[in-house]
This record gives sequence, C-alpha cells and structure tokens, in this order.
Amino acid sequence: MSEVIKQLSPQQLFELKRQMAIYTHGVQDIIPMEELETKVAKSVLENRPLKIKLGLDPSAPDVHLGHTVVLKKLRQFQDNGHIIQLLIGDFTGKIGDPTGKSIARKPLTDEEVKHNAKTYFEQFGKVMNMDKVELHYNSEWLSKLNFEDVIQLAGKITVARLMERDDFEERIALGKPISLHEFFYPLMQGYDSVVLECDIELGGTDQHFNILMGRHFQEKFGKEKQVAMLMPLLEGLDGVEKMSKSKKNYIGIDESPQEMYGKAMSIPDELMTKYFELVTDFSLVQLEALKKDIESGEFHPRDAKMLLGKTIVKIYHGTEAAEKAEQQFISVFQKGAVPDEMPMIEWKGNLKVPVLDFLVELNLLSSKSEARRMIENRGVKINGGKIEDTELQVSITEGLVVQVGKRKFIKIKL
Amino acid sequence: MSEVIKQLSPQQLFELKRQMAIYTHGVQDIIPMEELETKVAKSVLENRPLKIKLGLDPSAPDVHLGHTVVLKKLRQFQDNGHIIQLLIGDFTGKIGDPTGKSIARKPLTDEEVKHNAKTYFEQFGKVMNMDKVELHYNSEWLSKLNFEDVIQLAGKITVARLMERDDFEERIALGKPISLHEFFYPLMQGYDSVVLECDIELGGTDQHFNILMGRHFQEKFGKEKQVAMLMPLLEGLDGVEKMSKSKKNYIGIDESPQEMYGKAMSIPDELMTKYFELVTDFSLVQLEALKKDIESGEFHPRDAKMLLGKTIVKIYHGTEAAEKAEQQFISVFQKGAVPDEMPMIEWKGNLKVPVLDFLVELNLLSSKSEARRMIENRGVKINGGKIEDTELQVSITEGLVVQVGKRKFIKIKL
Repeated sequence: MSEVIKQLSPQQLFELKRQMAIYTHGVQDIIPMEELETKVAKSVLENRPLKIKLGLDPSAPDVHLGHTVVLKKLRQFQDNGHIIQLLIGDFTGKIGDPTGKSIARKPLTDEEVKHNAKTYFEQFGKVMNMDKVELHYNSEWLSKLNFEDVIQLAGKITVARLMERDDFEERIALGKPISLHEFFYPLMQGYDSVVLECDIELGGTDQHFNILMGRHFQEKFGKEKQVAMLMPLLEGLDGVEKMSKSKKNYIGIDESPQEMYGKAMSIPDELMTKYFELVTDFSLVQLEALKKDIESGEFHPRDAKMLLGKTIVKIYHGTEAAEKAEQQFISVFQKGAVPDEMPMIEWKGNLKVPVLDFLVELNLLSSKSEARRMIENRGVKINGGKIEDTELQVSITEGLVVQVGKRKFIKIKL
Repeated sequence: MSEVIKQLSPQQLFELKRQMAIYTHGVQDIIPMEELETKVAKSVLENRPLKIKLGLDPSAPDVHLGHTVVLKKLRQFQDNGHIIQLLIGDFTGKIGDPTGKSIARKPLTDEEVKHNAKTYFEQFGKVMNMDKVELHYNSEWLSKLNFEDVIQLAGKITVARLMERDDFEERIALGKPISLHEFFYPLMQGYDSVVLECDIELGGTDQHFNILMGRHFQEKFGKEKQVAMLMPLLEGLDGVEKMSKSKKNYIGIDESPQEMYGKAMSIPDELMTKYFELVTDFSLVQLEALKKDIESGEFHPRDAKMLLGKTIVKIYHGTEAAEKAEQQFISVFQKGAVPDEMPMIEWKGNLKVPVLDFLVELNLLSSKSEARRMIENRGVKINGGKIEDTELQVSITEGLVVQVGKRKFIKIKL
C-alpha cells in the first residue's frame, strides 16, 4: 500500500475504492495500476482534481459509437469532479504529409481545425458535460519549438525505443520505408502530456505505445508520470475491423434514429454483448443477466439486438425517437411496409425513362450493371411492385416510391 | 561524353583536362566522377566559378597535418578561380549534448565559436589564400527552422537510409543506443549544402555518408546535386589511428619547428611515403623517385624522414627555421647535445630537494612512481649528468638544465 493511501481516513479510503471500482470497469489495461490508485488517493486526500487527457485527430470529426467507449470513461471521471483535457492534435494536421505522397492528407487551415473542433464539441455533448472540459490545441506549443528545442526533445529518446512501435517494427520487417518525420508523431504526443501535466491519458488499445511516450517524456522532463488507460477497441458492423469512418463500418452518433437502429440490427450476433457493455449504460448486473438469458435461449438474439438498437437510439435521440424507430423497424422490415418518412428527390428529367437509367440517375445504384444485378436479384421495387424486367420503361409520377434493397427508400417529387 | 563537354572549344577542352588532372590526383573517391567532369566543363564553358564546401567542427580549432590533406585540395580549386565555402557547424556546437551524458561536450558560446573560427582562419592561411574564402555559420539558417520546417526536412529521408551509416549500423548490431537527435546531424550537413548550393563537398573518407546526404537533400529540394570528393585519411604518429587531437597522435601546424621536426622523425617508416604524398607539395615524379630510392636502399629511411621533417617545417615556418630544426635535431639527438633554446621554469621551493619530488614539482613527470621508473630506465639527466640514484637530493642552482627522455628539456630560473 502506498504512503498516500495510509494517510486516508476511513471515509476517504471508501471514496478511493468507490472511484477505483468505476474507473477500472470495462478497461482493457491500466499502466500501471498502482500509480492510478495513488493518483486517485492523492486527489481524494488533497481534494484536488486529476487531469485526464484525450487526444483527438482534427481531420475526422465524425464521432461514432467507437469513440463513445472512451468518452463514457471520461464522463465517469468528470462525474467525480476531475478535469477533462481534450487535445486537438492540430499541429500535424496543419502540416499535411511532408513526403507529398498522400494527396488525401491535405494540410488543414486554421478555420477547418476550429470548425472540426466545434463539431467534436457538439457531438461529445451527447455523452459528456462539455461545460467542464478544457480544450487545447497542440499547435499552441509545438509551433513555437525551434530546431534546437526539437533536438533537445529528440535527445531524450532512442531510435531503438521508437522502433518498438508495432507498425514501425512491422514495416521494418517487411522492408517498407519509414519516413524520419513519422518518428516525431509519438514524440509530440508525449510532449503534449509534458505541457498539459496530465495525470491520466485515455485511448484505445491501439494507442498503447503513443500513450506510454507521455510517461517517458514526463519522466525525462522531471514531471510526475501519467497513467495509461487503454480501452477495448469496438469492432464495427463488419464484426472484424475496428469501427472507423474510413472503413464505413460505423454507427455515427449524429445519424438519424432509423439509420442508427437499422445499423444496430446488422451487428453480428457474437458482438452483441460487447456492444451492450461498451456503448450502453447497462450495469454489470444487467449485463450478466442479459448474457445468461441469451445463452439459455430465453432471449432470442434478434430481440436482444432490437433492445440494443432501441437503447442506442434512446441515448442519442431520446425515448420517443427510440420507440418510433423500433415501431418503424417492425413495420418495414418485419412486415414489409413502406416507412412513414423517406428522402424526397426532385426529378427534372423525362417522365418516361429506362429503369436502369432511372436508378443510376437517382444515385440509388452506381452503375447500370449494378442496377441490372439488383433487379435480377429481385431487390428493386417501385410503388411496392417488384421489378423483374431490366428493360422496363418507368412512367414517373409525383410521389412515386422507389425501394432498393431492404432499407433504401426514396420518394419522387416533380 | 556529356552534352556540355561537346560544346567546348579545343582550348576549353584542354583546360578541362588540365583542371581534372589536378583535382583527381591524390583523391580517394569522387562520387560520381562524370558529374565532376560536367561541373568543371560547365564552369570552363560559362566562365563561372564552382562552389567548394568544407565543413568544420567549431569545437576543435587546432589544425594539424591531417587537416591539410583536404586544405591542399581546396587550395588547388582556389588556384583555378573557384570559390571555397568554409562552413562552421556552430549550430550543433552551441547545443552541446542534449542527452546530457557527455560532460565534455559543453555548449559553446557565440564568442567561443567566433574565436575558434578566427583560429581556423589564421591557421588555414598557411595553406590557403584566405582572401578568397567565404565563411559561413550554419546557425544562420538552422536556428531559424521551426518544428514544422524540421518535419518537412525529416519527411525527405527514411529511417532505413539513415541507419545505413556505418557507425549507426554498428551500434544497432551491438545493441548500443542511438539517440534520435543523432539522426539529425547528417540531415543538417545535407541541408547546409542545399542552402549553400555547393557544387562539390570535400572531406575525409569518414565523411562519405554525410557528404552524400548533401546530394540527397539537394535533389529533394530540386537543386543540382553536389559531387562528393573524399580524401584519404592520414594516420597519426602511432601509424594506426586517424590523426586527431584527441588521440594525441598529431603534428599541429602551429607547433614549433623543433616539435614538428621531432614528431616527424617519430612517424613509422611504412607511412613515410604516404606523408610525402599527402602533406608536402612533392610532385608525382618526385614521389616516384623517392619511393624507388628508398626501396633500393639508396636513400636510408632515417634520412628520408629527416627530409620529410625539414620539408614540413619549411612549409609552416620557412627555410631558415627548417635548416635550424634539422641542425638542432642532428646535434641533440644524433650527438646527444643540449638544445639552444628551452623553456625556463621559475623555481620557488627549497634549494635542496629529493629528485623524485623535484621532477614531479616541475611537471616533467606526473607522479613519483613514474619519476622513479624514468630514472631506473636511465631517462633523466641534470646538467648533462645521468641520474642513477632515485634517492638523490638535488642542489638547485640558477640555469640548471633538466632533461627527461629524449626531447624534454627545461632550464631552472631562480
């Protein structure tokens, strides 16, 4: 037991245990656990909040359920009076790709960075209390470093240590080039923690190496080392890859109730309990009961998944929207009806067109050959009637409903 | 034959051949030879001088014969109208050792850098015409780089390429740590060539990697690439290691004629012709004749070495001093006489002291046990008399001459 813990009163000791039980729940790894306990104990003893950092990529502000795993953990710290430090990594975002190889990584302007940060803020507000959050941009301090400062920083770490990072190690093994500037990304992340004097840094398990850089550099700069708190990664709708925007396997927290609910229904059965655990507020007891009932067959997986969909919609859109999404799902997908609301598309072309052209023009399918396949697979309906002839000439009228696949509906406006 | 060479008039072509014969003589490696030829050809065609760079360490301004190998080559370029760029690498000198491990590498102040540069200048003046030399300090541009610039620079090279440097490769193989900042030294040297737009960079063969960095970065910055011109390394008096101040195996060009001549006599026989080739102005024809005569036994190695000593002294102190050094060497070392001039040391202690204390007090030997060994080896004389008793009490008088070993003499002043 650490010296700090020995100084706690019985009430303070209970408070320490209470907080520790919350923070350690659902976490993949805490490095090192003793230091977390000591930090929380000190915070309780001195009635001083801890500083909890989360680093954010300024180029991808669409928040999805994968992010909420970390956000919910931050919320727990916040609920216990600690300070959340959101760190927008805008410095590298503004640089872009110095090798010039990635055209996709265009440098961000100041305005884009601020806009993206605002977007984060608005979305995070659905999970956290944003009044109590510190917002930082690392360009504030990183852009002020000169070459000498950079050399001093680089002098505090070895090449061998950097090459231990999984992806570097892998690329070296495969003979794939690593540009020298890439070695600086973990350095910056570590230096950010030196400047912010973070007590804890949160991230997914894929941030293991980078978050430990914070500990490394804080120590080299003579500061108290942060604790790394690594959250499990949430697989996306494909059930394989980490949920991410680029993989298109995500549920965005800004999506419509219908979209959210529908996507939740496509989560693979075997991931269902993980989703309940990581993205809902189900307690440990509730989770156990749920698992048991699913395993015993008392709770059908499809019904469990409907509960998951409803629960997620409820978090981001409220009870009423959740009920409605569920009702709509039942009527459309279980009974085959047409949804109450759907996007309207204004039609300005001829009123009689070949069906393949029609589907492509409406952007419902990306090419005529795809449209043909979809019709052959019996996946296209117009006003509820299944289309079987790929040569059909469609007569277009006001309010015409076109359905492609199970969930894509549009209504024509002339 | 390059396009440029085809444009030369017969006279210009002759001039090209004339210069190339000079520049390529005595060089270990030219990378790549064709580009050197093209550059010289362009210079002849356009009547435009080339820029020849030599990088200098600002922390060790004592110039020795090892340096003159490169300086003499620079002189040849200078004699043909080209521009010499001396680059004082003061930027890293001012930083010192960022790991804090090397206490020896203290950061240099601006004054020290300027003073050392001045010292270089004065000494180089003995080999080159310093009126026609450009002096540059790389802190001028390197200290202006910010973190973003550094990242842009680092983005232009891979980690694998840097690890090819011999000493890095060796340390990785031995598991010895490399601090990340060390990767920046070759980058800086390369970037210096970008800024200075050098056509040629000179250095010893140990600078192979660093000088090629200049080519690499000039290309990345869209500039014409410099040619690397690598000079052979001169082994020091020990005959093994590269001549350097830290190895104490050097002949400084600022040393006294006696010291220079004496040190020249201690060069191992097998290195003699290399010294003639690299540090004197002997022509190819003279060198061949010398080698032949030594090999045939017509010229005794000791006599050849005396010629070397005299030649070196003549370069740095003139004919008269060379004659005098030779005469003195003959009388002292070959006949056992006492030199005409020697350092005076003022004696303020007792006038009767034990000989061991006496020798140590005068700093002629570093400890009593060393002094005892030297006496036992019959290496100490006082007023010409060999000392054989280590317990002797010396009576000290004005003008007393003390000799330790072959070449160390001092005279007592009361």
